[in-house]
Amino acid sequence: MLVVMQSHATEEQVRAVCDRIESLGLRAHPIPGSNRTAIGITGNSGAIDIGSLEAMSGVVECIPVSKPYKLVSRDAKEENTVVRIPTPAGEVCIGGAALAIIAGPCAVENREQAMAVAQCVKKAGAHLFRGGAYKPRTSPYSFQGLGEPGLKILAEVRERFGLGIVTEAIDNESLDLVEEYADVIQIGARNMQNFSLLKRAGKASKPVLLKRGMSATLDEFLMAAEYILSEGNYQLILCERGVRTFSEHTRNTLDLSIIPAVQSRSHLPILVDPSHGTGRRSKVLPLSRAAIAVGADGLIVEVHHDPDRALSDGAQSIIPEELEELMKEVRQIASVVHRTLN
Amino acid sequence: MLVVMQSHATEEQVRAVCDRIESLGLRAHPIPGSNRTAIGITGNSGAIDIGSLEAMSGVVECIPVSKPYKLVSRDAKEENTVVRIPTPAGEVCIGGAALAIIAGPCAVENREQAMAVAQCVKKAGAHLFRGGAYKPRTSPYSFQGLGEPGLKILAEVRERFGLGIVTEAIDNESLDLVEEYADVIQIGARNMQNFSLLKRAGKASKPVLLKRGMSATLDEFLMAAEYILSEGNYQLILCERGVRTFSEHTRNTLDLSIIPAVQSRSHLPILVDPSHGTGRRSKVLPLSRAAIAVGADGLIVEVHHDPDRALSDGAQSIIPEELEELMKEVRQIASVVHRTLN
Amino acid sequence: MLVVMQSHATEEQVRAVCDRIESLGLRAHPIPGSNRTAIGITGNSGAIDIGSLEAMSGVVECIPVSKPYKLVSRDAKEENTVVRIPTPAGEVCIGGAALAIIAGPCAVENREQAMAVAQCVKKAGAHLFRGGAYKPRTSPYSFQGLGEPGLKILAEVRERFGLGIVTEAIDNESLDLVEEYADVIQIGARNMQNFSLLKRAGKASKPVLLKRGMSATLDEFLMAAEYILSEGNYQLILCERGVRTFSEHTRNTLDLSIIPAVQSRSHLPILVDPSHGTGRRSKVLPLSRAAIAVGADGLIVEVHHDPDRALSDGAQSIIPEELEELMKEVRQIASVVHRTLN
Amino acid sequence: MLVVMQSHATEEQVRAVCDRIESLGLRAHPIPGSNRTAIGITGNSGAIDIGSLEAMSGVVECIPVSKPYKLVSRDAKEENTVVRIPTPAGEVCIGGAALAIIAGPCAVENREQAMAVAQCVKKAGAHLFRGGAYKPRTSPYSFQGLGEPGLKILAEVRERFGLGIVTEAIDNESLDLVEEYADVIQIGARNMQNFSLLKRAGKASKPVLLKRGMSATLDEFLMAAEYILSEGNYQLILCERGVRTFSEHTRNTLDLSIIPAVQSRSHLPILVDPSHGTGRRSKVLPLSRAAIAVGADGLIVEVHHDPDRALSDGAQSIIPEELEELMKEVRQIASVVHRTLN
Repeated sequence: MLVVMQSHATEEQVRAVCDRIESLGLRAHPIPGSNRTAIGITGNSGAIDIGSLEAMSGVVECIPVSKPYKLVSRDAKEENTVVRIPTPAGEVCIGGAALAIIAGPCAVENREQAMAVAQCVKKAGAHLFRGGAYKPRTSPYSFQGLGEPGLKILAEVRERFGLGIVTEAIDNESLDLVEEYADVIQIGARNMQNFSLLKRAGKASKPVLLKRGMSATLDEFLMAAEYILSEGNYQLILCERGVRTFSEHTRNTLDLSIIPAVQSRSHLPILVDPSHGTGRRSKVLPLSRAAIAVGADGLIVEVHHDPDRALSDGAQSIIPEELEELMKEVRQIASVVHRTLN
Repeated sequence: MLVVMQSHATEEQVRAVCDRIESLGLRAHPIPGSNRTAIGITGNSGAIDIGSLEAMSGVVECIPVSKPYKLVSRDAKEENTVVRIPTPAGEVCIGGAALAIIAGPCAVENREQAMAVAQCVKKAGAHLFRGGAYKPRTSPYSFQGLGEPGLKILAEVRERFGLGIVTEAIDNESLDLVEEYADVIQIGARNMQNFSLLKRAGKASKPVLLKRGMSATLDEFLMAAEYILSEGNYQLILCERGVRTFSEHTRNTLDLSIIPAVQSRSHLPILVDPSHGTGRRSKVLPLSRAAIAVGADGLIVEVHHDPDRALSDGAQSIIPEELEELMKEVRQIASVVHRTLN
Repeated sequence: MLVVMQSHATEEQVRAVCDRIESLGLRAHPIPGSNRTAIGITGNSGAIDIGSLEAMSGVVECIPVSKPYKLVSRDAKEENTVVRIPTPAGEVCIGGAALAIIAGPCAVENREQAMAVAQCVKKAGAHLFRGGAYKPRTSPYSFQGLGEPGLKILAEVRERFGLGIVTEAIDNESLDLVEEYADVIQIGARNMQNFSLLKRAGKASKPVLLKRGMSATLDEFLMAAEYILSEGNYQLILCERGVRTFSEHTRNTLDLSIIPAVQSRSHLPILVDPSHGTGRRSKVLPLSRAAIAVGADGLIVEVHHDPDRALSDGAQSIIPEELEELMKEVRQIASVVHRTLN
Repeated sequence: MLVVMQSHATEEQVRAVCDRIESLGLRAHPIPGSNRTAIGITGNSGAIDIGSLEAMSGVVECIPVSKPYKLVSRDAKEENTVVRIPTPAGEVCIGGAALAIIAGPCAVENREQAMAVAQCVKKAGAHLFRGGAYKPRTSPYSFQGLGEPGLKILAEVRERFGLGIVTEAIDNESLDLVEEYADVIQIGARNMQNFSLLKRAGKASKPVLLKRGMSATLDEFLMAAEYILSEGNYQLILCERGVRTFSEHTRNTLDLSIIPAVQSRSHLPILVDPSHGTGRRSKVLPLSRAAIAVGADGLIVEVHHDPDRALSDGAQSIIPEELEELMKEVRQIASVVHRTLN
């Protein structure tokens, strides 16, 4: 259920409606828009008495929402959400006219590697630095990430290069630490339906980047996003990273058609990860161009100064020179789709 | 790496080899077999000095294991693992000659529903009772389970009907409680690669039932199992529950060919879940027969005394009469494949 | 549209209704049942004037059929279709109480190989002999089959061992020849939507065995069958042979749940091909048992007396001893599901 | 096997090598390149005596080709193949610097519709006209195309608007007629492994456009292409049109990563069909931009002046205004990837 307020409704009127909703044992989610405020209602197991709400001052109408997702829907918020990430070098926005490029190694391996890659990322002009301190690995015997020492290295990258940090949390414990050290909390594909983790991310004070699961439908993806918003965190960025199919010429099959599909249903920004999406270094640039051409709000790419010696995902990491070429090509495509690249 | 001990090696000799392994900064996993003990070594990032181990008394040979999974492999343990579950009504074994049938509702909805279903399950002759107190649901607005009060109802079922309890844990917090109240800790398909949860399950004192992920390959499934064994919990039961494909006449596509594939690679027992595997009540019996015919060690099925009013998964729950028919048909198939049904 | 006739309607009445239908520029398909005759109408692009048909003598009612398939549907014919195949050793029925086992090599390689395998097939008690004279091969440089000389060898097998012959046609030309030499015309998975070939098969005088396409949905499979029936050939046998998924432990993923799904929607018999369905010799027996347990009307399996030297599909061909074991196990499962194996 | 000739080898020397190959009962395929001629050998079931060929004058070396496809491979021909299509308005090239846009209705419905759409296609500046006279339809009761009368309408479109014609053949009979009336013979996705039809197309005198099958791997796609080249027709254009996956927000999942994958393995040009690839009108433009950005040699799109009344595929047909917008956007993307759009 959505309560649509008049465009000139006062803050008091909005607050009064929220109070009434909460007094009914439900949860109110005021969603300010440029023209009007809408108030999402969650927590109801059955029908809500619309009459008493519609009679309140400042209310235009109550709209029953039939879609299984509410808060992520364009019904709840018509204009695009712009996620704002404060960094030492200024605010980075995701979802506005400017594209966002997130780059860095798959994993933080050690201080030297992180600094070497960060220097290249900064030089190429990317906006945020990625790098895993907690790595979800298929095998228990693979490198699992440095943990908190890795986060400290990332914090140093932040300090030294002015780059905001995006890094993955894999459970509640690591999320506490990632929230402390990083600027964006990443939830990986394997955890897209780890609902306990989603709820915790929904209570975090930092923006969240949620990757699509390997075999998630569009509805499941948006419902996972709904878990985060329903806990109160509206600073959410989605990310397509390829799905699992019979096709074997790439590691996953990058499903670029989900970009316009998400954009027609939801106000949330969406990025593309061409590194996991293809799993092949030689495919990262062409698919990056395609991702921007289809309308994505940016990219998250793996880059390594020495991919052949990377502890993980070397085969899909591009080298610094390729990142510079990528930035150049993306800039050109951006102008065609009326976007900019700062 | 596996260290194979002589068939007449003493406990002291086994302990000495383990001590040597641990003194190298590695982890030793003694795996007793009917003829010999093998000792799995994990934690090595590179080659191990075989010579010093092979020279120890009681050691036959050291075998480098090339497969990415070690402890779950038949190389590590030739004979089938039989998981033993103590219940008030006696020990239930999974993986031996006798088949195990686990039945119960999708979710524990309330005390009356749980008791009503449990009575039918007991009457039909099933061996363990299933029922979710923590439900991973696609939507944040769906019924999420009763939590600990649900576990208490399950404990009452255990007491009253003598049935061992199988129930799902969805995060570390719920796992602590499930470990306390239940007999088998279930890890659901969506959490098959929630490695943090797998590690916690690997430290649990109760057997674990691990469901295959929706798009997991055989190797990924066995590697998820390896996470649990590598933490020291060898009481593991696998479960096929259907994979996600283009096919739409069933909710998932039940992949029965994975049963013999697992059995040739691993010593672990494997069940089939025909309820999630098909998502259709009318398909549960035929696929149950097929699962036993192909060689599964048992079934886990959803049953409800009033499926049309179930809070979740009513469409795939069979009714008590169908469970009795299922037990009858399974018993007949069992004898063909040289298994029994107590 | 289906016109349902009274149970005591005369042949003249049926013929009169058919004449009226054809006078409307449509096509009439009388479908005799044990209780009543139904007349399927095809060829209409829009609504049909029901009134004039319902007013005719002998007509009970006219039922608009909303499903996209008509003639293959149980609405058109309630009781199971039994396809009857005359062979030198007597009639083989597919779809009745007795199961049918079709066995033989992937391809007819030469006279000696065919006779050697046929002897084993006969000895094991299988009912029909399979073997390809026209092989659809992924590569143009692979063995493409012997063509008509292969059909002549099959005719000799028929003569010598009294086994009916099942062999594949890959285009209209080979279908003409297969129709002449063989007892059942097979349409392979790759040609399931070769509609030109389906129409030709629909005009054939011999029964057709239609394999499910590699990525065919249930509806597409039944619609392909509808192509054949709509041309007048009602002697059709369906066959599940595995679908293409991400799963890699078998060559295809055998979808046994389609057996009960077909049986609830259609009156046509359906077999299972565990050889292509798994692509692994060691999986053929377990999946054969499962196929019979789930309710299939029989099996089509590849057998070779010397699989390691087979010109095609050796890896999935069982040896003669395994075929005998298969017959034994299938016989035992059959009795559980109230079927027989002659 | 490939025989690589010296760059200054004479025509006589090439002919002599071909004669020798054919005298061995094999087939020679001379493949002229800008620097050298290579001669592909097909038809060998085992090893070939390299020595006698390498000793011939003009021969540099003989290279055993391990890949299952030979003639389509870049090993056989390093530079891109440019398929040249003569049309009344001049030659249209596919595979060179200039992109090719093929547009038109799903099916030729009648003369008026074809002319109306053709006028829009011409006005928008597309290069070739598509439209089906033979339609492979899932249901036997759906509109199956006009047949030869449809081809005559297409010939009239050719005459009146100067547009070359691309239309589908579905069997040998229709291919004979399509070859007579059209400029490019299309083989649809459902027939990608109709090897009999591929062989016939390989003998045709007109270029062929081969669509990827719904669940075809890259290797199967290239092997299907190899069937056509191995019969002597080197004028082949490939086309990605989406694959079948679990994903349901589009009709198929467009796999754009196959474009660079094909281009690294093969010299053949490849187009993208965003209409079938998405099945949704609103997704055609974004995916068209992405297709050009990733490096495709052009597009084949469905356009209809009145999609809501189209006899087939209306939901995925764009309207004429959208085609003009598409041409504009494609032109802008083209310049970024160093291509042109005439």
